[in-house]
Amino acid sequence: MAVYSSKLAVVQPKPVPQGTPEYEKKRASILEAFAKNVPPELRLSSEFFTNPPVNVSQVPTISGILNPAEIDITENYDAVGLAEAIAARKLTAVEVATAFCKRSIIAHQLTCCLTQWYMDDAIKQAKELDEYLEKNGKTIGPLHGVPISVKEHIALAGTYSSQGFLASTIFNEQDCLLVSILRSMGAVFYCKTNQPQTIMHLETTSHYGRTLNPFNTNLSAGGSSGGEAALVAMKGSVLGIGTDIGGSVRGPAAFCGIYGYKTTSCTLPMKDFMANAFSAELNILGSSGPFSRSLRDLELFMTTVLSQKPYMQDPQLIPLPWTGLNTKAKRPLKIGIIENNGFIDPQPPVKRAIAWARQRLSDPKHSNILQVKDFKPYNAAEAWAKIRRMYWPSGGKPLKDGITSIGEPVLPLSDWTWKDAEPHGILGAEEVNDLRAQRDDFRYRFVDDWNKQDVDIVIGPAFVGPASAHDTAFYWPYTALYNLVDYPGVVVPTPIQAEAKEEYAADYKPLSDECKKVKELWEASDFEGAPINLQVNARRYHDNELFGALAVLKDILDLP
Amino acid sequence: MAVYSSKLAVVQPKPVPQGTPEYEKKRASILEAFAKNVPPELRLSSEFFTNPPVNVSQVPTISGILNPAEIDITENYDAVGLAEAIAARKLTAVEVATAFCKRSIIAHQLTCCLTQWYMDDAIKQAKELDEYLEKNGKTIGPLHGVPISVKEHIALAGTYSSQGFLASTIFNEQDCLLVSILRSMGAVFYCKTNQPQTIMHLETTSHYGRTLNPFNTNLSAGGSSGGEAALVAMKGSVLGIGTDIGGSVRGPAAFCGIYGYKTTSCTLPMKDFMANAFSAELNILGSSGPFSRSLRDLELFMTTVLSQKPYMQDPQLIPLPWTGLNTKAKRPLKIGIIENNGFIDPQPPVKRAIAWARQRLSDPKHSNILQVKDFKPYNAAEAWAKIRRMYWPSGGKPLKDGITSIGEPVLPLSDWTWKDAEPHGILGAEEVNDLRAQRDDFRYRFVDDWNKQDVDIVIGPAFVGPASAHDTAFYWPYTALYNLVDYPGVVVPTPIQAEAKEEYAADYKPLSDECKKVKELWEASDFEGAPINLQVNARRYHDNELFGALAVLKDILDLP
Repeated sequence: MAVYSSKLAVVQPKPVPQGTPEYEKKRASILEAFAKNVPPELRLSSEFFTNPPVNVSQVPTISGILNPAEIDITENYDAVGLAEAIAARKLTAVEVATAFCKRSIIAHQLTCCLTQWYMDDAIKQAKELDEYLEKNGKTIGPLHGVPISVKEHIALAGTYSSQGFLASTIFNEQDCLLVSILRSMGAVFYCKTNQPQTIMHLETTSHYGRTLNPFNTNLSAGGSSGGEAALVAMKGSVLGIGTDIGGSVRGPAAFCGIYGYKTTSCTLPMKDFMANAFSAELNILGSSGPFSRSLRDLELFMTTVLSQKPYMQDPQLIPLPWTGLNTKAKRPLKIGIIENNGFIDPQPPVKRAIAWARQRLSDPKHSNILQVKDFKPYNAAEAWAKIRRMYWPSGGKPLKDGITSIGEPVLPLSDWTWKDAEPHGILGAEEVNDLRAQRDDFRYRFVDDWNKQDVDIVIGPAFVGPASAHDTAFYWPYTALYNLVDYPGVVVPTPIQAEAKEEYAADYKPLSDECKKVKELWEASDFEGAPINLQVNARRYHDNELFGALAVLKDILDLP
Repeated sequence: MAVYSSKLAVVQPKPVPQGTPEYEKKRASILEAFAKNVPPELRLSSEFFTNPPVNVSQVPTISGILNPAEIDITENYDAVGLAEAIAARKLTAVEVATAFCKRSIIAHQLTCCLTQWYMDDAIKQAKELDEYLEKNGKTIGPLHGVPISVKEHIALAGTYSSQGFLASTIFNEQDCLLVSILRSMGAVFYCKTNQPQTIMHLETTSHYGRTLNPFNTNLSAGGSSGGEAALVAMKGSVLGIGTDIGGSVRGPAAFCGIYGYKTTSCTLPMKDFMANAFSAELNILGSSGPFSRSLRDLELFMTTVLSQKPYMQDPQLIPLPWTGLNTKAKRPLKIGIIENNGFIDPQPPVKRAIAWARQRLSDPKHSNILQVKDFKPYNAAEAWAKIRRMYWPSGGKPLKDGITSIGEPVLPLSDWTWKDAEPHGILGAEEVNDLRAQRDDFRYRFVDDWNKQDVDIVIGPAFVGPASAHDTAFYWPYTALYNLVDYPGVVVPTPIQAEAKEEYAADYKPLSDECKKVKELWEASDFEGAPINLQVNARRYHDNELFGALAVLKDILDLP
C-alpha cells in the first residue's frame, strides 16, 4: 500500500485547545497515520487553504478531483436509487464506492468530518459484491453496494473506536450487530466519522479536530454525530449511522439540513456499540438512527435492518413490527405546532420555518386529513434541568479522569455538559433510583399533558436556532426533551435558511435567562446560509405512526 | 356498620417472630381492626382450631358457612364462566360478590391469606353493577361482576398498602392504573392479600401473619404473592393480581397448584403500584401478572386490560398487540424440556412431573406439531449469583432500617435475600452501571445459547421442589433466571402431587452445594399433598408466542 505525505490540510477556522506535549505528540501521530493513506490526487490544492470559502458545500463538485460520473453518482442518487442502479447493473458497486470514498475525503478536508478512512478496503468489499452479482445474478441484499458511513464509537471490524477522547481508543475485532446486519445486506463500509469528546456535546470537537458546518464553516456541524451529518450534507455519504441520547442524531442533522431519525430506545440494535456501558443510561437510554437526504432512505434503512429480526440476537430490542411509511395515518391526523417550548424562544429563522410549516399545514385544502393545533411541550425547563442531572450519575468524574489521564485538555463543552451534575459527585444507588423515579414521574405527567392537548404528532424546532457558532451549543432542550420521555423524532429539511442580519422581533420578551442568552448568541454571530430543519415527534414506540404521518407531511411540505 | 369480636382465629402452625412490645401493640391493633369487620356467622368454630387438618383446601365446602349456591358459584365457574353467567343474568353480581367475600374470609382463617377484607364495599359495588345491567341492558365491560383479589402493595382506592412491613403502610386515595382499568371493565374489589416483609421472599410472612399452603399447612403458600395464590387455590378468589421480580407470581402459583403468569416487563401497567421506586429495578424490572384456575381466565385478564390501550396513559408500556391464545403456534413447535438446570436437581415429585410431561409431549401422535428436545438453561448458577447481587444495589440497608424503625423484627428470609449483597453496602452509580452491564452481557450470552439449542419454548421446574416447608424457600433459580433475562413464563398445574416418603434416586449426585442442601430440605420435611406445577417460558416479549404454545399444550397436557 502506497504511503503519502503525513500532513493532510483540513479547514479549521477555530483551533482545538492544546493538551500536554506528550498528548499532542500522540494526537499528531494518529492524524499522520490517517494522512498517509490519502493520495495526492485526492487532496485539495494548498492554494485552496489560503482562502477557503465560508460555504464549502459546493467545493467537491468544482474541485476537479471528481469526474463527471462520480459527481453524478454522489449528487443524483439517494440510497434507494443507488441500490436500484447497482441491482440493475447501471452502476457497479466499485464505481459507487470509489465515488463516495473520493468525495468523503474531499469533504473531510473541508469540514473535518472523518476519523478513519479506508478506500482500499471499501473497493475490495465492492469488488466482491460486483463479483457476487455477476456470479449469482442477484444482489446479496437490499443494500447491495450502498456505502454507509459509521459514527466513530460504533464497532466496525478491523477499525478503531473511541468515546471522543484519545485515551478511550480501542481496536474492534468484530462488527457490532447493526453493522453486521448492514454488511450482510450488502452495505459497503469506508469511513468512520467524528464525534465530540465524551460524545455528549451538541457540537463535534475531538482529538481528531473540529467538524465544520458545510454551509458556513464558522458554525458547528452539530453533535455528537456531527461527522455523519457534515459528511452526508457534503454528499460524501448517502446513508449514515449515529446515536442520540440528547439530540446527537437530530441536532447535527438539523444543523446540516439533512434527515436524522432518533428511534424510540430498543428499536435498532446497539449491541456492542461501545466497549463500556454508559452510566447515563441508568436514567436515559440512548438510541441509534440513520442519516439520509431522502425520506425513503430512512425507510430503506429501517426496513432492511428490522426485516432481519435483530431481536432474535439482541434481547434488549422490542419486536414491534415495522410498517413505516406504509402505516395508515389517522384521519384527521392531529398535528400540534410548537411555536416555542415556554422556556427558550427560538432564533428568528427557526420562527420563520415554523411559520412556513404552519401556513402549509393550515391550508384549507388539507382540512379533511389534518387537524392543526398549537402545542406547548409540558414543563420544558424542568425537563432540561432534570435530564442534565440524569446524564451524569457520577458527576462526570470517571470520564474527566479518563480524558485527562494522558494530558488531553477537557473541552469547554465537556465541562458544560456535566456542570449541573458535577457538584453532586458520584451518586449512591438510592440517589440514582430517586432520579429514575423523578424521570418516570415526569414521563407520566408529560403523557397526561400530551393526552390533554390531544395530538398524534407534533412539529416544532429541532434546536434553539440554526447551527451554533463554535463552542456555543449550550441549550438543547428541544431535542433532549424527547430523550427524557423516549419519544421518537425525525428532523426534516425545510427550504428556509438563516439570512444575514435577521433580527429578533421588536416586542421580544425573554422567557427565561437562558432565552436571553440565546438572543445574545444570535446577535454575536453571523448564521447566514445555515439550513433550518424542523422536528417531528410521536408518542413513545409510535415510530410507525410517526412515519405514517411523515408520509402525509411529505406531500404537504414538499419533503425530499 | 356492625362491629364484631376483635379476635379472629387464624390457623398458624408456626408463629411469626416477635418484635418489640410497641411494635406488637401496633400490629395487634391492625389485626383487631380487621377482625371487627368479620361477622360471627362467617367465623369457623373455635373447636375447629383445636385440631385443624393439615389439608384445609376442602374446609370451606364443608364448613357449613356457605350455602349450596355459594359453593356452586365459587367452585363451578372460572372468571369467564362467571362473567357469562352474570351477563346472561343467571347470576347477579351481588350473589357472586357475596359468595367470594364469604369464601375468602373462610380461606383467610385457614391460610392467613388476606391483609384487608371489605365485604360491605364489595356488595355495594356489585349492587351498582346489577343496577347498571338492569338499566342499560348490557354489561359495563367484560369483567362485569367478576371479583378480583389484589396483592397488598398494589394501590386500591380507599385501602391501605405496604411493602410487607408495618412501617411502610400508607393509605391510597386512588386506584393504580391497572386497578382502575379492571374496575372500569366491571371488576369488583373485595380484599387485599398477604405478601412477605420486603416483598422479596419466596414465602409469605409479614406483620399480617404467615400464609399457609392450602394443601399442607406445614408448607408455605409461596411468595411474594402468596396470599393471592392461597386465596385462589382455596377458591376464595377466581382471579387475582400479583407481581414478580424473582418468581413472586410463578412461585406461589406453583406452590398452590394454580396458574400464574409473569409477563415480560412493561406489558401490564404498574403505574402507581407502589409509593416508592424499588431500587432493585435499577437492574431487574418487576412485572405484573394474573392468577387463575383456568388458562382462558389468564387470557380474559390480558385481553381485557390490553384492549384498553394502557400504554396511552403509561408510557413505560410497550404497545405490542395481544393475540394470546389465538396466536398461531409454529409448526413444529420446538419445545425444550428442562430436566434440571445443571445447578440444583429438583426434588423427586418435580422430577416425576417432568417425566409425566415428557411422556405426554413425546407421544408420536404429536410429532407433526411438536419437536421435543432436551434443554439446559445457560449458566444457571451464575444467573442465580448475579441476580442476588442485582436485587440489592444498596445492600438492603434502606429497607432494613425501615423495618426495624418501629421495632419490627427482621425475618430470617429477609436477611437471606440480601445476604450476598449486604457486605457490598450501598453501591455507587458506576458500580450499579457495572452490574447492569453484567446483566446485559449475561442476556446476550443466554440468548446465543437459546438460539443454539433452537427452541421456541421451554418447559421445566417452577421451583426446586413442591412448596417449601416454612422459612426454607432459599433457592429460586428456576424462576429468577427468567427475571434476569426478562422472559415471560406461565406456571401450569399438573396432576402430580408430592407423596409421602418419596426418595431421591439411589444414584443421585449433587450438582452443587446448594443441590445438596435442597436434598437435605427434602429429607427434613413431609410434603405430602403438595401440588406440582411446571413452568413454560418463551423469549423476551414473545408473550403471544408463549400463549400460542400454551393453546397447543392445553390439549396434550389436559390443562384446565
